[in-house]
Amino acid sequence: MGKALVMSTAIKGANLTWHEGSVSHEEREKLLNQKGVTVWLTGLSASGKSTIACILEQMLLHRKKAAFRLDGDNVRFGLNKDPRQLMEKSGYSEAAAKRFGLGFSADDRMENIRRIGEVAKLFTDAGVIAITSFISPYRRDRDAVRANMKSGEFIEVYVSVSLETAEKRDPKGLYKKARAGEIKGFTGIDDPYEAPEKPEILIDTETCSPQDAAAMIFHYLEKHGYLTA
Amino acid sequence: MGKALVMSTAIKGANLTWHEGSVSHEEREKLLNQKGVTVWLTGLSASGKSTIACILEQMLLHRKKAAFRLDGDNVRFGLNKDPRQLMEKSGYSEAAAKRFGLGFSADDRMENIRRIGEVAKLFTDAGVIAITSFISPYRRDRDAVRANMKSGEFIEVYVSVSLETAEKRDPKGLYKKARAGEIKGFTGIDDPYEAPEKPEILIDTETCSPQDAAAMIFHYLEKHGYLTA
Repeated sequence: MGKALVMSTAIKGANLTWHEGSVSHEEREKLLNQKGVTVWLTGLSASGKSTIACILEQMLLHRKKAAFRLDGDNVRFGLNKDPRQLMEKSGYSEAAAKRFGLGFSADDRMENIRRIGEVAKLFTDAGVIAITSFISPYRRDRDAVRANMKSGEFIEVYVSVSLETAEKRDPKGLYKKARAGEIKGFTGIDDPYEAPEKPEILIDTETCSPQDAAAMIFHYLEKHGYLTA
Repeated sequence: MGKALVMSTAIKGANLTWHEGSVSHEEREKLLNQKGVTVWLTGLSASGKSTIACILEQMLLHRKKAAFRLDGDNVRFGLNKDPRQLMEKSGYSEAAAKRFGLGFSADDRMENIRRIGEVAKLFTDAGVIAITSFISPYRRDRDAVRANMKSGEFIEVYVSVSLETAEKRDPKGLYKKARAGEIKGFTGIDDPYEAPEKPEILIDTETCSPQDAAAMIFHYLEKHGYLTA
């Protein structure tokens, strides 16, 4: 059947032989005509990360580039479920749920970002453009993700906004709740946001629309050769 | 800058406007001309899962399809690190490392497969063909991964081999160690392997070479429309 496959039109190029080892990263990128990379958006809640990520993803997909967003919606309800979800949806015992489920303690936040960084690395290794949009407030956690990747595979994008503007936007009413003490440890209110010192890309959302911000990142990727291989 | 981008050759098709929502799954698949799916290989150690996965990945990449293998090498040293690695490589406290690190207890194995399933789901949502090669001996854990995905997005491939043949192959000497009692809870020796009851694909590696097995899966994907959209 292997021979039949080679001789069919399924695989272009006759007499290809399949070696047992894995495809090299370089070969993979050439075949997919793009380079794997993680575009890591960081910034306060309501800075516009998710909107920028959505638009950037659309731009890349319309260019026929495999791109994927990792955000709270698909991570916190999946890989990084909280203990309650693990019990209710995954049938975990209370002990297992407490152990593996993630809440918002310091350890849990660190593990949340570590797991996201590992998944972004897998996407990057797969040759995909991973776009993450998480507040990711601590420099140490972001730097650990960067250190886990090869040079040039981690692009830190600081989505900058003043706390004043973020609080005015407050689309989900989270700042209001945090000010009222209903949410504890909220970044910018009673928990620090540590801005990147040397981000690859700095976006000032006070003056730059989400569309322009996404275009700026797109052009960066294009200029630096990520969209071909 | 957004307008400039649309007018450049960067994006084909003039006057594209970017909506704020996300790209629909259907639209993503059309743009990438492939359907996201998880090909879940399960079988005893030394059944040939990894070899088949490698060859299948090569076949798909040579067809210009985004495909990626998840296996012990890139998962157990990354997302599912053990406690020791979390302390040594990620700087975790002993308490955090013990909590989040994965060993080989029943709970740890369940969480290992759950995390892999969640990552495979993310790849599938990204429109990529995810190929997982893990023993994944428990039916309940595999069924939970299947239940977490949409119909048609999970293809279970039972890589069947007799224990006798697997023990004869024993490329890493693991069966020998398990027989000697040096490894505890080894699947097939002192821990059960629960074969799939209704796998989408059954491969008998006693009679089918890894190349033929990979070709069989490739043809299944082609025939069922996963390689176009």
